[in-house]
Amino acid sequence: MVSSKTQAPARKKQDERERLVKEMEDELGLSSEHPEDQLYLYTSPETIVANLKSKKDGWTAERVMIAFIRSACAAHRKTNCLTEILFKEALDNARSMDKEYAATGIAEDVFWGLPSSFKDTYNIFGVDSSLGCSPHCFVPTEKQEEEATLVKLFRIGGGITFCKTNVPQTLLAFECRNPIFGTSTNPYSSERTCGGSSGGEAALIALRGSPMGWGSDIGGSLRIPAHYSGICGLKPVRGRWPVLGQRNSVQGFEGIKGMVGPMGRTVDDLIFASRSILDLTHSQVADFGFRGEMLIPLPWKEVDLPRQLKVGYWTQDHLIKTSPACARAVDECVKKLKDAGHQVVEFQPPDSKLMNVSICLEIKAYARKHIVAEALKVTLGSKLPRWLLGLLCWIVNNLLKDHLFASIFATSRPKSVHEFWQFTARRDVYANAFRKLVWEDEKFDMLLCPVQAVPALEHGTTKLLSPLSVATILFNVVDSTVGVLPVTHVDQNLDCHSPDYLADSEGSWILEKRVYGPGGAYDADKMHGLPVGVQVVGREWQEEKVLEMMKILEDLVGYKK
Amino acid sequence: MVSSKTQAPARKKQDERERLVKEMEDELGLSSEHPEDQLYLYTSPETIVANLKSKKDGWTAERVMIAFIRSACAAHRKTNCLTEILFKEALDNARSMDKEYAATGIAEDVFWGLPSSFKDTYNIFGVDSSLGCSPHCFVPTEKQEEEATLVKLFRIGGGITFCKTNVPQTLLAFECRNPIFGTSTNPYSSERTCGGSSGGEAALIALRGSPMGWGSDIGGSLRIPAHYSGICGLKPVRGRWPVLGQRNSVQGFEGIKGMVGPMGRTVDDLIFASRSILDLTHSQVADFGFRGEMLIPLPWKEVDLPRQLKVGYWTQDHLIKTSPACARAVDECVKKLKDAGHQVVEFQPPDSKLMNVSICLEIKAYARKHIVAEALKVTLGSKLPRWLLGLLCWIVNNLLKDHLFASIFATSRPKSVHEFWQFTARRDVYANAFRKLVWEDEKFDMLLCPVQAVPALEHGTTKLLSPLSVATILFNVVDSTVGVLPVTHVDQNLDCHSPDYLADSEGSWILEKRVYGPGGAYDADKMHGLPVGVQVVGREWQEEKVLEMMKILEDLVGYKK
Repeated sequence: MVSSKTQAPARKKQDERERLVKEMEDELGLSSEHPEDQLYLYTSPETIVANLKSKKDGWTAERVMIAFIRSACAAHRKTNCLTEILFKEALDNARSMDKEYAATGIAEDVFWGLPSSFKDTYNIFGVDSSLGCSPHCFVPTEKQEEEATLVKLFRIGGGITFCKTNVPQTLLAFECRNPIFGTSTNPYSSERTCGGSSGGEAALIALRGSPMGWGSDIGGSLRIPAHYSGICGLKPVRGRWPVLGQRNSVQGFEGIKGMVGPMGRTVDDLIFASRSILDLTHSQVADFGFRGEMLIPLPWKEVDLPRQLKVGYWTQDHLIKTSPACARAVDECVKKLKDAGHQVVEFQPPDSKLMNVSICLEIKAYARKHIVAEALKVTLGSKLPRWLLGLLCWIVNNLLKDHLFASIFATSRPKSVHEFWQFTARRDVYANAFRKLVWEDEKFDMLLCPVQAVPALEHGTTKLLSPLSVATILFNVVDSTVGVLPVTHVDQNLDCHSPDYLADSEGSWILEKRVYGPGGAYDADKMHGLPVGVQVVGREWQEEKVLEMMKILEDLVGYKK
Repeated sequence: MVSSKTQAPARKKQDERERLVKEMEDELGLSSEHPEDQLYLYTSPETIVANLKSKKDGWTAERVMIAFIRSACAAHRKTNCLTEILFKEALDNARSMDKEYAATGIAEDVFWGLPSSFKDTYNIFGVDSSLGCSPHCFVPTEKQEEEATLVKLFRIGGGITFCKTNVPQTLLAFECRNPIFGTSTNPYSSERTCGGSSGGEAALIALRGSPMGWGSDIGGSLRIPAHYSGICGLKPVRGRWPVLGQRNSVQGFEGIKGMVGPMGRTVDDLIFASRSILDLTHSQVADFGFRGEMLIPLPWKEVDLPRQLKVGYWTQDHLIKTSPACARAVDECVKKLKDAGHQVVEFQPPDSKLMNVSICLEIKAYARKHIVAEALKVTLGSKLPRWLLGLLCWIVNNLLKDHLFASIFATSRPKSVHEFWQFTARRDVYANAFRKLVWEDEKFDMLLCPVQAVPALEHGTTKLLSPLSVATILFNVVDSTVGVLPVTHVDQNLDCHSPDYLADSEGSWILEKRVYGPGGAYDADKMHGLPVGVQVVGREWQEEKVLEMMKILEDLVGYKK
């Protein structure tokens, strides 16, 4: 449902996007007509840069850019993943870089000639960051200095921004739909979502429409799309990486910390992106000004992993039972890690369901007031008078006997500053207890767990299942470094659930019925072939270690892309 | 005015304290009767430890402890600065350390045998952290693990905690008075306050009642007492130092970040304390568990200062005109820095008055609901209905023509979560702009400015002058590392203000009249001899650099203690 106020800018934005995509398709031809592009599309970003610098036969920035523009157009035709189209400028840029290289022989920068996509939240000079909201349409970033610092660093490193990708309107959803740009779909199934909020980015990269890209994550916004779309992503911990220059839907909320991070097809691509950005951030090259952002002086540092990793894992978070496919993904990793000689033990983190759901709904209740968005209908509670909310909670708790759901329901009303501070204090107690247990007492190197209870859902089904994101929000709350990588695909022969699947569940039966009941969200037959990822979790500011551990796992599972 | 509910615990706490002090005075004799103690009292903490370890003639942990217990008792008799008395345990501890050393010959720890005081906020196992509030009296820290991490580190380093020091009841005041322990006075004048909230600590150290100590600072709480009492203090930036295990009056408030820090008589004492604590924090010794606290992995690192420092300074913050004494303190430093060849330029930071006052009153308005404390009467606005507040603002603004005061007044009503988040977002914009301007554009090594517009005030006068703390809160808002050191004393011949002192002022005339009007808070005659400090400000996480710059300034000004 699109309001009349939104219709005009939506049409204008979509027309403009269509014109720019079509223009390139007409000028460059379609990806399907150019099988020679595969050479570039199947090369890692690091190798692309190396080939360009070494002037490998046939490799120019222009050729690489053309291949990715054609591929991005094809990905967009398939999934509606793009928002802002910067192809023409990018192509001009690539051509002039080639010329300059030919003239000077100098191409030293770490991202030299590499195209990259960015989530719509990243401000780029002269380009909208509309987030699919009409008030932000045709209001481009006006000043060079308001650009996202990460975009600036990428460009200083010789990279070329060539498109921006779609998000849900409020960013606080794990679907990818808004009234301006419409719905982005999953690369594996047009009936399903590519996840959110960094959904367009995941779909584009999964379809090799961009060598790598950049998302952000305040509750799973980078990890869920990676999981749904079968790619890799890293959520660093706030501090070492510049996050300035993002457009957000909620300003000033510090209850949990949002973070930017790289998305790519392989762990090596994430390592390349992370190392390069941290090097740029902490080198003198970056003396271009961070606009006052505080950055912890911890440059990239190679790590030596212990020969035997201590891994704690779980498959269940006890709110909504994990599906057979997503539990199997973890189990298979566990088996392979054990076989490789690592110490792998089952572990249950301190109970966090309500804390996380409370955070989730807290932000949403706030956003509701400011952004009219259908995706937020889940926060029913906050629309009701207190007495009615209390009554409904009582009914759910005492008559329907779903205590978990009742508690969730009760957290969804707007809070006072006093309550908000109490919540913040509770969060600190929880996060410290979690970190103490996991890193100090158990001394785990890695935690391993599902990204979500289910693989990619059908469009429109996530809004009644937003508590599914507790599995990812947990690590924003306790401030962990987390990577996601795909490890398997849904298999209809292995991953069906029996009618008594919920018999032993301690979760919320109301939510679980929506997932596993008749016509529920999870269906291994319909989901056959969808990718399934896992979360690899490490301590704060240990991006290098988490990436190396992801690489070990990636090598062990041998996921076929 | 002490409520009846408070009278009983107050009497009991005071009786207990008196008994423990008297016991020591009877057993050990008075400080005044033991001139030989001067040897220990006038030795720096670092040298005390060195002398103990090298078994210098006559030096034992017991002798040092006795000298400081006698001196602390004398300081307490003079200023009422102590809360919890741990003398007996400390003396036992010192004696058994001596014995062990004699037996084993091992005394390697960095604080070996050193006594230290702690602000009442630091949890110590088995001891109250009452903060002068009756509900917290006789509720000692029950678990070893709930102790402040800094206390644990100090003890692991071989140090001996021997007393705790007084604070204002809510911590959110820069006087030092509460209904349980009464009023702590300034070491230079019993009619004046030693500052707050780390006031008892400052008075004790100034009177050589402790070799060094530990305070905390969320808006000047460590810096104002250092300034009022003529000692040095360091407010690090949150991240490298453990802060866990403090009792606070406001839980969950993250609008600005409170921080712990060392207090001492000289900059060298701060360097010794800082380096030792950071070494302990980041060494394997500290594998005792940080209870999940996130600590940036940045150990102590020696710095090389540029030969010529670039220093930006100001003497006025344009809210309340700085007194002649406090402006002169900065001016004298400027002259000496210039003479020493440093580049010193006058600088005006972006306007921050209202932002800071707003934060100040925000916290107070919150605390008011929870802690009945007379020191909070300043937040008049929050008691009034909105319409009356609006009317009063209009009167102040339009009839009294004090626009600044009107704006301050208007910020003092309680806020909604939405307004609170808006405030947080505004704070980020301000803090980033400040940091960009100061550290990136101007590339200052140091900022130099007054700690407050005035030297130590008389008891009871701060409550109507709480906006004076804008000068210190600024650096909590923009997250800077700040040191305070004394540089001069008030001189009645140099520092009197003329009747037309406010003629050119742009500040709030209502507030300024309270300071400089007839019978106002500032009076150079009455204040003659009071210490005056300055703030030395550096970037986040640059404790080493700030301390080295303080040392340069300390050497240049040659302040007589």
